[in-house]
Amino acid sequence: MPTPFDLLGLTAGALTTIAFVPQLLKLHATKSGRDISLGMMLIFSLGVLLWLVYGLLIGSLPLILANVVTLALALIILILKLRYARRRIRLDDINLP
Amino acid sequence: MPTPFDLLGLTAGALTTIAFVPQLLKLHATKSGRDISLGMMLIFSLGVLLWLVYGLLIGSLPLILANVVTLALALIILILKLRYARRRIRLDDINLP
Repeated sequence: MPTPFDLLGLTAGALTTIAFVPQLLKLHATKSGRDISLGMMLIFSLGVLLWLVYGLLIGSLPLILANVVTLALALIILILKLRYARRRIRLDDINLP
Repeated sequence: MPTPFDLLGLTAGALTTIAFVPQLLKLHATKSGRDISLGMMLIFSLGVLLWLVYGLLIGSLPLILANVVTLALALIILILKLRYARRRIRLDDINLP
């Protein structure tokens, strides 16, 4: 039976995970991730990976669940940002007079 | 004396916190946060606030430290994003022929 403290932690984890869904939707809709820092996404993804390993080592299911999902979302955002940046460079190569 | 597991958790917390520094620097340099999702920043900040309360309730110093700093960085990013968005709207109001 989870305690009220556990429930607060689970709610916190759910929020910091689902927060990346609107970012993913926005990135997909606008096809632009120029203002999103590449450094942030790389450092953040590495940090989430370490949180996941930590969760696995101490056997914490909330930490494991939250960080598996956050890592997946963060990596998709990172890949889309890079893909849209490459597309932008290709478009910029077309030198119109 | 912190265990190797503690050190891993502290490293993870340090990374997911300092990740927001390059985003803050980029936002300050470009004065543009258009591609950053407002929904993400609002939900993420609320989640970090709950992690902070959870850390205070269970008396976890790493959770408290990481989330105080992350909350401060996330709120500054949120405020700058909104400020630069308002400035953009004002500039758009100037209808050039």
